[in-house]
Amino acid sequence: MSEQYPSAQDPTLEEQASLTSGQDAWHLQGIPEKGIPGYMITDGPHGLRKALASTTATNLNDSVPATCFPPAAGMSSTWNPQLIHQVGVAMGEECIQEQVAVILGPGVNIKRNPLGGRSFEYWSEDPYLAGHEAVGIVSGVQSQGIGTSLKHFAANNQETDRLRISARISQRALREIYFPAFEHIVKTAQPWTIMCSYNQINGVHSAQNRWLLTDVLRGEWGFKGIVMSDWGADHDRVASLNAGLNLEMPPSGTDNQIVYAAQDGRIDRKQLAAMAQGMIDLVNQTRQAMSREGYTFDANAHHQLARQAAAESVVLLKNDDNILPLAPTANIAIIGEFARTPRYQGGGSSHITPTRMSSLIDALQERGANAQFAPGFTLEDEPQDAALTQEAVTTAQHADVVVMCIGLPEYAESEGFDRTTLDIPAKQLAVLDAVAQVNSNIVVILSNGSVVSMEPWQQHAKAVLEAWLLGQAGGAALADLLYGDANPSGKLAQTIINDINDDPSMLNWPGEEGHVDYGEGVFVGYRYYDTFKRQVAYPFGYGLSYSTFAIDQVQAVADAYQPNTVQVSARVTNTSDRAGAEVLQVYVAPEQSAVARPVHELKGFAKVYLEAGASTTVTIELDSRAFAYWSERFNDWHVEEGTYTVEVGTSSRDIAARVAVTLEGDHKTLPLTEWSTYDEWKQDILGAQAMKAAEEAAERGEIIAIPDNDMTALFLHAMPINSMTTLLGPEGGKITQFLLDWYEAHTK
Amino acid sequence: MSEQYPSAQDPTLEEQASLTSGQDAWHLQGIPEKGIPGYMITDGPHGLRKALASTTATNLNDSVPATCFPPAAGMSSTWNPQLIHQVGVAMGEECIQEQVAVILGPGVNIKRNPLGGRSFEYWSEDPYLAGHEAVGIVSGVQSQGIGTSLKHFAANNQETDRLRISARISQRALREIYFPAFEHIVKTAQPWTIMCSYNQINGVHSAQNRWLLTDVLRGEWGFKGIVMSDWGADHDRVASLNAGLNLEMPPSGTDNQIVYAAQDGRIDRKQLAAMAQGMIDLVNQTRQAMSREGYTFDANAHHQLARQAAAESVVLLKNDDNILPLAPTANIAIIGEFARTPRYQGGGSSHITPTRMSSLIDALQERGANAQFAPGFTLEDEPQDAALTQEAVTTAQHADVVVMCIGLPEYAESEGFDRTTLDIPAKQLAVLDAVAQVNSNIVVILSNGSVVSMEPWQQHAKAVLEAWLLGQAGGAALADLLYGDANPSGKLAQTIINDINDDPSMLNWPGEEGHVDYGEGVFVGYRYYDTFKRQVAYPFGYGLSYSTFAIDQVQAVADAYQPNTVQVSARVTNTSDRAGAEVLQVYVAPEQSAVARPVHELKGFAKVYLEAGASTTVTIELDSRAFAYWSERFNDWHVEEGTYTVEVGTSSRDIAARVAVTLEGDHKTLPLTEWSTYDEWKQDILGAQAMKAAEEAAERGEIIAIPDNDMTALFLHAMPINSMTTLLGPEGGKITQFLLDWYEAHTK
Repeated sequence: MSEQYPSAQDPTLEEQASLTSGQDAWHLQGIPEKGIPGYMITDGPHGLRKALASTTATNLNDSVPATCFPPAAGMSSTWNPQLIHQVGVAMGEECIQEQVAVILGPGVNIKRNPLGGRSFEYWSEDPYLAGHEAVGIVSGVQSQGIGTSLKHFAANNQETDRLRISARISQRALREIYFPAFEHIVKTAQPWTIMCSYNQINGVHSAQNRWLLTDVLRGEWGFKGIVMSDWGADHDRVASLNAGLNLEMPPSGTDNQIVYAAQDGRIDRKQLAAMAQGMIDLVNQTRQAMSREGYTFDANAHHQLARQAAAESVVLLKNDDNILPLAPTANIAIIGEFARTPRYQGGGSSHITPTRMSSLIDALQERGANAQFAPGFTLEDEPQDAALTQEAVTTAQHADVVVMCIGLPEYAESEGFDRTTLDIPAKQLAVLDAVAQVNSNIVVILSNGSVVSMEPWQQHAKAVLEAWLLGQAGGAALADLLYGDANPSGKLAQTIINDINDDPSMLNWPGEEGHVDYGEGVFVGYRYYDTFKRQVAYPFGYGLSYSTFAIDQVQAVADAYQPNTVQVSARVTNTSDRAGAEVLQVYVAPEQSAVARPVHELKGFAKVYLEAGASTTVTIELDSRAFAYWSERFNDWHVEEGTYTVEVGTSSRDIAARVAVTLEGDHKTLPLTEWSTYDEWKQDILGAQAMKAAEEAAERGEIIAIPDNDMTALFLHAMPINSMTTLLGPEGGKITQFLLDWYEAHTK
Repeated sequence: MSEQYPSAQDPTLEEQASLTSGQDAWHLQGIPEKGIPGYMITDGPHGLRKALASTTATNLNDSVPATCFPPAAGMSSTWNPQLIHQVGVAMGEECIQEQVAVILGPGVNIKRNPLGGRSFEYWSEDPYLAGHEAVGIVSGVQSQGIGTSLKHFAANNQETDRLRISARISQRALREIYFPAFEHIVKTAQPWTIMCSYNQINGVHSAQNRWLLTDVLRGEWGFKGIVMSDWGADHDRVASLNAGLNLEMPPSGTDNQIVYAAQDGRIDRKQLAAMAQGMIDLVNQTRQAMSREGYTFDANAHHQLARQAAAESVVLLKNDDNILPLAPTANIAIIGEFARTPRYQGGGSSHITPTRMSSLIDALQERGANAQFAPGFTLEDEPQDAALTQEAVTTAQHADVVVMCIGLPEYAESEGFDRTTLDIPAKQLAVLDAVAQVNSNIVVILSNGSVVSMEPWQQHAKAVLEAWLLGQAGGAALADLLYGDANPSGKLAQTIINDINDDPSMLNWPGEEGHVDYGEGVFVGYRYYDTFKRQVAYPFGYGLSYSTFAIDQVQAVADAYQPNTVQVSARVTNTSDRAGAEVLQVYVAPEQSAVARPVHELKGFAKVYLEAGASTTVTIELDSRAFAYWSERFNDWHVEEGTYTVEVGTSSRDIAARVAVTLEGDHKTLPLTEWSTYDEWKQDILGAQAMKAAEEAAERGEIIAIPDNDMTALFLHAMPINSMTTLLGPEGGKITQFLLDWYEAHTK
């Protein structure tokens, strides 16, 4: 390649430097004189947060109205990538109207621990689900010519000390748990931008992590877009530019220092040019959409879409005596301030101004429901007011059904801090207790961004709707569900446990002295609970419907042409007299492995809508990755030869059918060395031949034979052959050398 | 220091090289012409295993008779360092008779997981207990002029892939869990030798780990002796000698290569000289004892000592209806092959030939007990013989009491492999089930080297004696206990759990692909179970007696002169009409900490023997280390200022009294930097002054003020001050610089 840099058309060194930092907190730094505008970028991820005052990052709640879709806590429970794609399209349209070139989201960090303060913004404890859902946001937004920013790359799983903490994680856990959602979205949807995380990974800040941003992201996954810093995550622009960070946000005003660094060689000139070119490419990608000034989106349609997304976000956890759906004429008591003042999104950078709001009370009034309301408690962190309890009891006393709205108020959950308990505030539960004394027909609706404990209060509830955070149309959606105008179809994207100490990450949560050890490795969420047979309140993937379904005709067939690929099919039948949706889930369970693997892992799913009595057959392909683990020895994915069980079910613990498939594996092997054990030599085809040759040499008296005694049995099998002298004295070393020589001669 | 090397008297380079490897598997390489003999060293650790054929390491069971004391699994339950010291003295005497200069033991690795195949050779899940018990072996043996070899240093906690595996452990877990038993013994008893472990620690083989063998062991702890390799653990003598390994065992016949390496500078000459000098010093230390040829030890007295040690090793777990002790005239059925063929020691390098053997059957016959025996089952890994079951049932049918001897046969537990289950072999439990159908007065005696599950069989047992492995006098000791001639006083050195999945190390057990992550960190054993409120079968420190005891007058007083030192005292009263022993246990519980600490940790204990009705007051001093944690930030122990609860009790879950003490701490602090957060600046005395000065500078218009808004509240508190530009744009950087300048000016 000839040395063409710089040419007349190319940006100058000064311009390159300027392109790699923002103009202000919410704008790119353009080069107007060269036709490169400084477009706006804004927070997401479940709607647009376009700041009104745009010069600093400090005004959180002053933003233009935008449709507030359900945050990921809710949306992830839909298991509906098509619906999520539609939401992405809608957000893209809103960006066009507001002339925002990039919306910052989705956030696909793994919910390592339910106490994580930002869990409401993230998708799942499972990387397959997170990746296959959140990709819909990226594809939807970008179909409108607007960029997304996949975030926070990577391993940003807590709020405590989030700007400094070093997440100490094994390569395997990174590859199998913390990377795949990013990897899938990069490979299938090419987000135009990625936002690096605040934290360090194994001692290196993400912004300065060349292995992360260049080797893995661009090299292995083929990422073509730009990487920007999380707001304030870039502490050393020179190191970051060299590592592969294109854009510092917000700007620190140090562009001239970048010029000097390039001049004195601390920044590689080609690297700086490439980082700047990425920024120009991004601007060019968004030009068309940014030219559509005057475009307006359909706020009504978006509200309706938000309502549908909200309805699908709700998970029906229990429904004793089929207390739901309610009869239209039922006399109901609505208890709980959440019914009037919904908690519909989380606090922090994702907090947006909705275009309209519908509380549950609003929605019930609109449909003329026979309902009486009592707030029961306030949403402030203050002692209970006995009068509110009394009013709640009185209201509940003569109702046919009590709908009790409880959950986590804003003060209990937000970006910026981690929770310290799974418990719902005690004063709310005290009201529930009091109400339960006078009425046993209780439906609980939960509002919470992440898991709350179901004990001991759940005994009072005949039905529980886990409603997470539902966005601006949540009230209407809940009314639809209560009365059966919508049918629950949400499934848990996160296992519900009752005791936070059951979570294996608690041994290392939230870390200390600047680091947090991911000691549980790959055993996150159901991977732990199911493998180690722990009790849970509700398993991953679980959720009821007003309909009933049956699964049969399950098949899993290894592909005849593609190695380590399996076609799975199953028939799903709606066995009820009501239309509804079921989510078919495919888990892969290795029968045996050289490494500790989760007892099963989600590797495919499909949501099917079925009229009453209808059937459909679903087909899901499992590629080789579905069977692979990340091998630190091979530094690569590895599919072992052997039998795998393909499980088809409706939660990680409701498996309808299991089918065994046998795979040839990927034939990866390591060469034998002096560090291979006696047993490894014996088990290797060539190694066994070398052993045989050594026996023959011993018979010829050239070397000594390995004695067959108890010490041999005790030690030898696990001993690297370079330890032969231990067993046999110096003569043993000659056996080692014989084996290595023979092996080398036969592998050339 | 003048350059005196080499002098005429010093060994030559060739001699130095030869001193650093053995003569054969069980002898040092002397320099006879310079008066340095090649003494013998042999395996321990619970008795002498002096091989008959001594030229290779391969003859495990051919050894001269020696008293077989209880292995550490048993001895650790005595909580009696004085008794353990006596055992050490006896072993030293046996070494003198056999002209063995060094006995290889004790092994003080932590029982990280009860499945560890060598758990029977190790002392405890708790490093304080392990160190304070095993030190008695070292002090006892060495009081006789014989050396010990403290092993396996360090982090050798499993058998799986033990020669290669890299134990990946945090510094804190190493310092708080895996090192302290070694550290305590080195500092208080100076073992003449230490044996390095096979495994790697964080990627470095112990034999080659200079940080481990030189910086920590010699530099920090002041170790004066020599380090030898475990048999076959030295894979690179050049690297090992440079790291601080004195002796390669067994020899690989490569002394000439060491000469070359010293000549061409790959080995530091002074280092080699020091390593060789250590070997000469060791020989000189043992000369006196080795000169006592013809000395004979008192085998009868040693057997009696073994009997006492065995009796104190047994833990009475339950004793419903006071079924124990048995009446002398009771008609008893003894069921279980273990009663006739005791499992009295573990398999592997520690397997010794006893001077005599007493089975339980022998002991009962000797005392003329009214007992009938049926083997019930064999100790082979073969299907149950129905006739044996029938015989057991018939024998049990009309007995007043059934003594049922069950446990782990040799095939289920040994050095060389890890167990895969906590379960007692099913055929034994089936016999117990059958026997329980015909007799409900069942006393179970367990023989096992590490924890076995108590479920579901325990319901059949009115009493359970956890007898571990008891050495050659175990049968007599058990008879003493059954009939009340001895009174149980053993306490668990290891928590008993019923489900191996309850152990937090199971998530990383036994590792894979050459490494094992110690993901549970410091939460090993009761540190996990008690902190995370998990159910256990029997807690750490637990054990019943035929006597009853009361604890009162508990005091904990901070020392007026020694900072962070507390004097604890308590009165123990034998409230029964039978003499017996109780173990007073002192746990320290920090009220709050900057790091995640176990809810409490053992920091002192005292075993007291009391006649019926007698009282005594025990005093235990807690020094600053009792309150410290290992800080990775300070790279040192750190005592935080604050309140600590001193707990005095008889198990980790039977706390008789709690006393709060307030300590000043060690006043360690870190200087503030640009990486300190806003909150850290605010909380620091000088930092707060700097903040105030910045406010004043802002009032004077020299820098801008930090705005008081929601974004500030959300981000600022946890943000290092070098991120001020994120909040405030480039002007923010000036605040950062102001603070740093002010701080520097005021700390000079």
